Amino acid sequence: MSTYTIGLDFGTESLRALLLDLGSGEEAATEVFEYPHGVIDQKLPCEPGAPLGPNWFLQHPGDYLAGLEAVVPAVLQKAGVEGSEVIGIGLDFTACTVMPTDEEGTPLCLKPQFEGDPQAWVKLWKHHGASAEAEQIIEVARQRGERFLDYSAGTLSSEWLLPKVLETLNRSPGIYEAAHTFVEGTDWIPWQLTGRLVRCACCAGYKAHYVHGVGYPSADFLRAVHPELGSLFEQKLRGPVVAAGTPVGGLKPEWAEKLGLNAGTPVGAGLIDAHMAVVGAGITEAGKMLLALGTSFCHMMMGREEKFFEGLACMVKDGILPGYYCYESGQTAGGDIYAWFVRRCVPDDCAREAEEAGMNLHELLSRRAASLAPGQSGLLALDWWNGNRSILMDAELSGLLVGATLNTRPEEIYRALIEATAFGTRRILQAYGEAGVAIEQLIACGGMPEQNPFAMQIFADVCNMAIEVSASSQTAALGSALCGAAAAGKERGGFDSLEEAARSLVKPNKRTYQPDPVAAGLYDELYREYLILHDYFGRQERLMHRLRAMRARHSG
Amino acid sequence: MSTYTIGLDFGTESLRALLLDLGSGEEAATEVFEYPHGVIDQKLPCEPGAPLGPNWFLQHPGDYLAGLEAVVPAVLQKAGVEGSEVIGIGLDFTACTVMPTDEEGTPLCLKPQFEGDPQAWVKLWKHHGASAEAEQIIEVARQRGERFLDYSAGTLSSEWLLPKVLETLNRSPGIYEAAHTFVEGTDWIPWQLTGRLVRCACCAGYKAHYVHGVGYPSADFLRAVHPELGSLFEQKLRGPVVAAGTPVGGLKPEWAEKLGLNAGTPVGAGLIDAHMAVVGAGITEAGKMLLALGTSFCHMMMGREEKFFEGLACMVKDGILPGYYCYESGQTAGGDIYAWFVRRCVPDDCAREAEEAGMNLHELLSRRAASLAPGQSGLLALDWWNGNRSILMDAELSGLLVGATLNTRPEEIYRALIEATAFGTRRILQAYGEAGVAIEQLIACGGMPEQNPFAMQIFADVCNMAIEVSASSQTAALGSALCGAAAAGKERGGFDSLEEAARSLVKPNKRTYQPDPVAAGLYDELYREYLILHDYFGRQERLMHRLRAMRARHSG
Repeated sequence: MSTYTIGLDFGTESLRALLLDLGSGEEAATEVFEYPHGVIDQKLPCEPGAPLGPNWFLQHPGDYLAGLEAVVPAVLQKAGVEGSEVIGIGLDFTACTVMPTDEEGTPLCLKPQFEGDPQAWVKLWKHHGASAEAEQIIEVARQRGERFLDYSAGTLSSEWLLPKVLETLNRSPGIYEAAHTFVEGTDWIPWQLTGRLVRCACCAGYKAHYVHGVGYPSADFLRAVHPELGSLFEQKLRGPVVAAGTPVGGLKPEWAEKLGLNAGTPVGAGLIDAHMAVVGAGITEAGKMLLALGTSFCHMMMGREEKFFEGLACMVKDGILPGYYCYESGQTAGGDIYAWFVRRCVPDDCAREAEEAGMNLHELLSRRAASLAPGQSGLLALDWWNGNRSILMDAELSGLLVGATLNTRPEEIYRALIEATAFGTRRILQAYGEAGVAIEQLIACGGMPEQNPFAMQIFADVCNMAIEVSASSQTAALGSALCGAAAAGKERGGFDSLEEAARSLVKPNKRTYQPDPVAAGLYDELYREYLILHDYFGRQERLMHRLRAMRARHSG
Repeated sequence: MSTYTIGLDFGTESLRALLLDLGSGEEAATEVFEYPHGVIDQKLPCEPGAPLGPNWFLQHPGDYLAGLEAVVPAVLQKAGVEGSEVIGIGLDFTACTVMPTDEEGTPLCLKPQFEGDPQAWVKLWKHHGASAEAEQIIEVARQRGERFLDYSAGTLSSEWLLPKVLETLNRSPGIYEAAHTFVEGTDWIPWQLTGRLVRCACCAGYKAHYVHGVGYPSADFLRAVHPELGSLFEQKLRGPVVAAGTPVGGLKPEWAEKLGLNAGTPVGAGLIDAHMAVVGAGITEAGKMLLALGTSFCHMMMGREEKFFEGLACMVKDGILPGYYCYESGQTAGGDIYAWFVRRCVPDDCAREAEEAGMNLHELLSRRAASLAPGQSGLLALDWWNGNRSILMDAELSGLLVGATLNTRPEEIYRALIEATAFGTRRILQAYGEAGVAIEQLIACGGMPEQNPFAMQIFADVCNMAIEVSASSQTAALGSALCGAAAAGKERGGFDSLEEAARSLVKPNKRTYQPDPVAAGLYDELYREYLILHDYFGRQERLMHRLRAMRARHSG
């Protein structure tokens, strides 16, 4: 009998499942489920749905469960595999994607008395409603010299857990009070499936300031932020912190029935989706950077040293594989910017031409823009449509385009936006280099390398480094399936460790983008201009912040 | 018997004619003719049509003549007026819109041996191919301390005559050599109609540095610019300089037949279209500024003093009405920017919605954007899509948009672009104020006040001044018709002077936009941010110039 595991990858727009054949390492089947409510950014999905401010991004937890019930039976059926052949389940999730729940794990937003309050809903990773809270927390932590801040470049993002929870306490004390716990999606799913609540070390470390060997920020510090926040970690974030692939428990009978699996099937503790992709890309050593290029971008690399430097958004010991420091940097929007442009800014003659050519708009714009040399459009952009995570750590920054003329064409802007995100990545690589952290190899995964070869070539040219593409199209889901194999353990047909599973089963990278020396030279020139804009608007002139403040004033 | 005159307004996209009833002052009929070749910015309209670089904007002179033959008979027919009732013709034209011709006035581009050379064609006012030439001319003039520069703020624009002609000499010496004369459209049309070539004082003063009482720049200076340029004014710009409304001559029989008018009908010397609008708006005294808001924007005001200050693009004594200094400032793109946005950047869902609502896209975007408060979008733009004419006098500047987020919507960008052009106007008004030149009244004319009340209200709010709208929808064409009346003279049923014609026949302004105090306060705040961007990119940081240079390198 063959053995299989299932990897579940909860992304921003959809859930993907991957059925992995542990004998061959082949992906026996995959399935995607688009969340019915998608990203909620206009109004709450209830009656009457309260309108949301700008920078609000929520999700519906029912979408996650509906997805489970759809994708797990689907991959079994597609591959003709019996549920009894599945020996483990693993998962990854976007983070910090967090919700308040009651004692049983029911999200407060699904209870009629709370559903009308935006604070009761799942705050998606890119929710930026807690900027003021983030600033306050930073200020208090700096004043008190809190050491946990060292692990996140001396600052923290409004996307992380503390600002998001403090926002709830500030805006809806009743929701905060009613919350038995705040839980990341990464931990909520195993809780639902097994009845046991643990906290994955990755989310705890990256999003909630848990430091290996030290623990969470202290109650004293929390009280200094807000008198009622003191018991947050002690009471509302209870649960052991465990490494990825650790068995959380066995599948509950009711879920076994819904999913068509055996009751008791081990469910492994998860990782943040981006970090899981490191596992799925087969990276098991230091010096190899994974570029997870999806709606947003993550740059992750394992190293042997504890090292603090600008551009490092966060560092967590054992954050992916035990024994390594995991360095993480990121760009808060990547594919999101291209998608915004295609949706909001491309005229109907392009739409018609794309339809006639049987292409999507990305393909059409790529084809048109491919004939341009770097610099030829005269355009340059800053990739801050959703703020800047690494280097500047500033969510209040915004997008900028310069160089427009009456001849500027849509494909030129499209290319400039891709180039801007590539410059953002290069700026991060530059920071690693300046810190003496050697990057020996770049491996990409995510939607961009799968769908946008045009953008990939620009990234290789801008960074002037070869970029390999990981073998699997579902790197995170594959990593999750490997976690399932680690949770099952060798005796049940799995593996003793996640590292061993990755070494044994991940296939070689499938493609390499080599930099073009001429383009790279031109991009050196454009990058110098990018740096001028970056430092002027990012460090010197607070104009973007004032515009953001004016905007916030009108949006209540 | 009634008497009539015909005003001809040669614009960027079309020719408009207006038949004016001199008895009542009523506009008896109007007609518009779209130029078949429009603005030529991609390739020459001949086989094989040479491709044009960015910043190239040409026109086809045959379009002007075809237009004459279409519109003159059309207005007569519409109004049921006999050609014999028309006692004079006047005209205005965009400028500097200049072409090389042979001795008979045939444009070189219409001769087979020259048609393949872009330099043989009509260079439209906004043609920006002569930037390097403009820089060289400025440098030489400054070194030599040429006084004519004082009348154009110590600099000159690549849009003016000398750079455009020097570009021809540099790139196509053969065309320069073959050119018997270089002639503005304003002067070419009367030449065609009457057989006599004069130079209107307005074009000579504003575009060719002709200073009242002094003359054109000297041959010495021209030789210092280029050894073969010395005889330019003496030989290739021959013809008396005359004031608007001066009779150039009588209509030639062949043209009388084509147009359905009497041979010998007086044709009056013209003005630049923007300046003619001052006449058509009934402005006959100092302190009233006309905002000509069309594809580009012109700000014109008459004053009693010779005064030099930053923001004044040009000053010409007797440039409109005799006895006044005419101050002129301008923005090189206005409605052009909104049109660019609507054509290149508005997605098909907007197009569908507009179609369903029976609106054009400007109306749809205006309706959507009307509910936004100033600052609410978080966006801010610099209105330099075609460079900056007044204040910075720099054609190498380019458009900028800052504040974009993943929630930014098309109507927000549309509004930001309108606001940016309004800030550009306010910056010019500020310069007049700082120079102690009092502006007592703002009167608008052109496409914007006719078609875009949403933009007009933004202009009133941004400038925090009432803006009146001139009575006629065809201000320039009306002014031209008044010139026809002046050319005819009192004896033939016209007027002794252009000033008298304007005082007698122009109706009161038809509408006033009052500033909203709340919006004006918010715009004060945004305007401060605009000034920061204006001065950083316009005076301090040469990034836009370097981007432009990279672009030029690829465009040959």
